[in-house]
Amino acid sequence: MTVQSRSPERLVHVPLGDRAYDILIGPGLLARAGGEITSRLKGRKAAIITDEHVAPLYLEALMDGLQTDGIEAVSLTLPAGEKTKSFDHLATVCDMVLAARIERNDAVIALGGGVIGDLAGFAAGIVRRGVRFVQIPTSLLSQVDSSVGGKTGVNSRHGKNLLGVFHQPDLVLADTSILDTLSPREFRAGYAEVAKYGLIDNPAFFEWLEKNWQKVFEGGPERIEAIAVSCQSKADVVVEDEREMGRRALLNLGHTFGHALEAATQYDSKRLVHGEGVAIGMVLAHEFSARLNLASPDDAKRVEEHLKAVGLPTKMSDIPGELPGADVLLDAIMQDKKVKGGKLTFILTRGIGQSFVADDVPSSEVLSFLKEKLAK
Amino acid sequence: MTVQSRSPERLVHVPLGDRAYDILIGPGLLARAGGEITSRLKGRKAAIITDEHVAPLYLEALMDGLQTDGIEAVSLTLPAGEKTKSFDHLATVCDMVLAARIERNDAVIALGGGVIGDLAGFAAGIVRRGVRFVQIPTSLLSQVDSSVGGKTGVNSRHGKNLLGVFHQPDLVLADTSILDTLSPREFRAGYAEVAKYGLIDNPAFFEWLEKNWQKVFEGGPERIEAIAVSCQSKADVVVEDEREMGRRALLNLGHTFGHALEAATQYDSKRLVHGEGVAIGMVLAHEFSARLNLASPDDAKRVEEHLKAVGLPTKMSDIPGELPGADVLLDAIMQDKKVKGGKLTFILTRGIGQSFVADDVPSSEVLSFLKEKLAK
Ligand SMILES: NC(=O)c1ccc[n+]([C@@H]2O[C@H](COP(=O)([O-])OP(=O)(O)OC[C@H]3O[C@@H](n4cnc5c(N)ncnc54)[C@H](O)[C@@H]3O)[C@@H](O)[C@H]2O)c1
Ligand SMILES: NC(=O)c1ccc[n+]([C@@H]2O[C@H](COP(=O)([O-])OP(=O)(O)OC[C@H]3O[C@@H](n4cnc5c(N)ncnc54)[C@H](O)[C@@H]3O)[C@@H](O)[C@H]2O)c1
Ligand SMILES: [Zn+2]
Ligand SMILES: [Zn+2]
Repeated sequence: MTVQSRSPERLVHVPLGDRAYDILIGPGLLARAGGEITSRLKGRKAAIITDEHVAPLYLEALMDGLQTDGIEAVSLTLPAGEKTKSFDHLATVCDMVLAARIERNDAVIALGGGVIGDLAGFAAGIVRRGVRFVQIPTSLLSQVDSSVGGKTGVNSRHGKNLLGVFHQPDLVLADTSILDTLSPREFRAGYAEVAKYGLIDNPAFFEWLEKNWQKVFEGGPERIEAIAVSCQSKADVVVEDEREMGRRALLNLGHTFGHALEAATQYDSKRLVHGEGVAIGMVLAHEFSARLNLASPDDAKRVEEHLKAVGLPTKMSDIPGELPGADVLLDAIMQDKKVKGGKLTFILTRGIGQSFVADDVPSSEVLSFLKEKLAK
Repeated sequence: MTVQSRSPERLVHVPLGDRAYDILIGPGLLARAGGEITSRLKGRKAAIITDEHVAPLYLEALMDGLQTDGIEAVSLTLPAGEKTKSFDHLATVCDMVLAARIERNDAVIALGGGVIGDLAGFAAGIVRRGVRFVQIPTSLLSQVDSSVGGKTGVNSRHGKNLLGVFHQPDLVLADTSILDTLSPREFRAGYAEVAKYGLIDNPAFFEWLEKNWQKVFEGGPERIEAIAVSCQSKADVVVEDEREMGRRALLNLGHTFGHALEAATQYDSKRLVHGEGVAIGMVLAHEFSARLNLASPDDAKRVEEHLKAVGLPTKMSDIPGELPGADVLLDAIMQDKKVKGGKLTFILTRGIGQSFVADDVPSSEVLSFLKEKLAK
C-alpha cells in the first residue's frame, strides 16, 4: 500500500489590493478549472480564446469541466504564432466576446501560450472597459512570465507590444502537466525566462538551475518548483511596481536586444521565437555589461554556457538566415518602449543575479558593440 | 477709464491621487495651451487628433501656440461624426501616434468634441500602455461631460462605447469662446448634459438654469458658471467612484433610453445626436419613474418644459423618420453595459435632483412603458 504524498500543488498569491489574485501551479488543474473559477468569480459565462495547436489537445476538456460547474462557455480558435498578436485579431476577439454577451463579472479565458494570453487579456481589458480574465497558460513561457502581472498587448508595424493595457487576471491556472505536449524548442524558449529570474536577482536560483535543469525539463517536482519560484519572483516585482515605472523594468533583462532581434526577423517563429531572442539578449546584456567594465566577462561566459547546455541559441549567428546591420538593430531598439526622452534605457548587470536599470546608455556604445558582435 | 475685472477663468481640480488633474475653464485658453502643457508635462512632443469641422477653425492656432512653447506637434484630421468612433479609426490613430514616436511622457491632444475625445483618449490609453493625454474639448457636451472623468471608447456593431479603457487626462482646457462656432443644434445637445447635473442631485442648479439658460447660450459669465458647475459635479462623482462601480452610474441618467435611441437611429446624426438622445431619455426616465409611482408626473412635465424651451427634442416622436418597435429598443437596452447578470439597471428618480440607481427593474415594465410611449 502506498501512502499518497501531500499534493504537489503550489499557490502564489499576488497581493494587489482589489486586484489581488491567485496563481495555482500543479498537475491536473485544467480539469478543475470550473470549480476554481466559480469559487472566485460571480459570472457564469465565459469566452475561451485559444489557438489551433492547443485547441485539439485541451479545449474539449476545459469546456467539459466548465460545463460541469455550470459555466456557459463559447470558444474561438485562432491561428498559432506571434502574428496573431495583431490589432486585426484583437478586433475579432472583442467582437466574439461581445457577441457572447460577456458582462463585467463574466470571464474571458485565455487557453494558450503568451500570444493568446496577451491578446485575450487585451480584449478582456477593453471590452466594456474591463471584464474578468482567467489565464490558463499552456506554454512554459506563459506559465512563468506572461500570464502573471497584467501586461497585455499586441504588436504594431512600429514594434512589439506597442499597443496594450494593464489588466490583471483574476486567476491563473498553471497546469504543469499540460507542458508535456509542448515542443522541446518551445520548452527551451520558456526556460530562458526561468533562467532570467536567477540572473536578475537570485544567484542561488541560477545555481540551482545549473544543477537541476534536466529534471525541470523532465517534469516532476523540480518543474513545479522552478515554475513556482519564477511566478513568485515575477509577482514580487509586479507588486512593487505594477505599472512599470521603475523596478519592473528589470524583467526586461535581455529583452531590449531580444525584441530588436525579433523585429529584425519579422517575428518569423521559424527563425526565432521570443524566448530564444531573450536567451541571446541575456548573453548580449552580460557581454555588453562586461564591455562597459561593469561585470566580469566570466559571468557572461557562465550564462552562455548554461543556456547553450539546455539547447538555446546564445549568439546572433545562431539565428538562421541573414540579419540586418547594426544600425537597423539600433533603430529597432530606439523604437522599443524603454526609451525615455531619446536616451537609451537598458538592463545591465554587475554579475549573475545583480542586474540593474541604467537609463543613460549612449546609443553610440550600443552601436559599436552590435557592430563588433555582428562581425564575428 | 474702465477697471479690468478679475479674470473670469475658473479652475476645477480633480483630486485622483497620482492621476489628479486640472480643468481650466474660460475664454482664450487655446492660445495659451502650450504654456499650460509645458508647466505640467515633461514631454515636448504631441500628436493632435481633431476632426474636419474643428481643424479649419482652430488647428493652426493650437499648432502655433504649441510651437511657441517648444512643443513639436503633428496632427491628424478625421471625418466628423459619431461613425468616427470606430475600431478602424482607433487603429489609424494609434498608428499615427506611434509613427510620431510619442513616448510615455509625451501627449496625445484631443481637439474636438466628445467623438474625438473618446477616440483619442482610447488611443492615448493603449499606445505603450498609456501616454499622457490632454483634452481640449470644443463642444459644450465635451466641455461639461466627456472630457472629464477618463472614460474613453469606441462603438461596436453590438452597441455604443462597448470598447474602451479608463484613462484620465492630465489636463483639460475648456476654452469657452470656442463654443461660439458650435452650431445651435450641437450647443443645445450639450446643454442637455448641463441640465442633467441639476436633475441628478442639484435642484438649485436646475432652477438656476430654468432662469438663466438664455444667458448660458449667449455666452459670458453665465456660460462659464454653468460649465464650471457641471465640471465640478462630474469631478465629484468621478472622484467618489472612478471606475463606475456604484455612484458614477448616476451620470447615466437619461442615457439608457438615449443610447437605445441612438442605436435605433444607427447613430445617424442627421436624425439624432447624443445630447438629443439624452434629452429624450431624461424625460423618459422621469416619466418612467412617475409610472412606477416613484416621482410625481409634475416633475416629468417640468423637465420636459425646460428642455423644450431651449429647443431640445423631448419625445421619441420628435425624432425624424421611423423608429423600430419597443422590443427592438428593449433589446438595445439589454445589450447596453448597465446590465448586471441579466437584470436591468436604470437610473430612476424621486423628483428633480433626486435620482438614484435601481438595479432590479423588470424588463417587462420597460417594455410596456416603451410600447405605450411609442403608440402616442
Ligand atoms: N504579457 C507579458 O508580460 C509577457 C511576458 C513575456 C512574454 N510575453 C509574450 O508572450 C509571447 C510568447 O509566448 P509563448 O512563447 O507562449 O508563445 P505562443 O503563445 O506562440 O506559444 C508557443 C507555441 O506553442 C504552442 N503551444 C502552447 N502551449 C502548448 C501545449 N501545451 N502543447 C502544445 N503546443 C503548445 C502554441 O500554439 C505556439 O505554437 C510573445 O508574444 C511575448 O511578447 C508577454
Ligand atoms: N467619455 C465620456 O464620459 C462621455 C460622456 C458623454 C458623451 N460622450 C460621447 O461624446 C460624443 C458626443 O460628443 P459631441 O456632442 O461633442 O460630438 P462630436 O464630437 O461629434 O461634436 C459634435 C459636432 O460639432 C462639431 N464641433 C465640435 N466643436 C465645434 C466647434 N467649436 N465649432 C464648430 N463645430 C464644432 C463636430 O465637428 C461635430 O460635427 C458621443 O460619442 C458620446 O458617446 C462621452
Ligand atoms: Zn519575455
Ligand atoms: Zn452623455
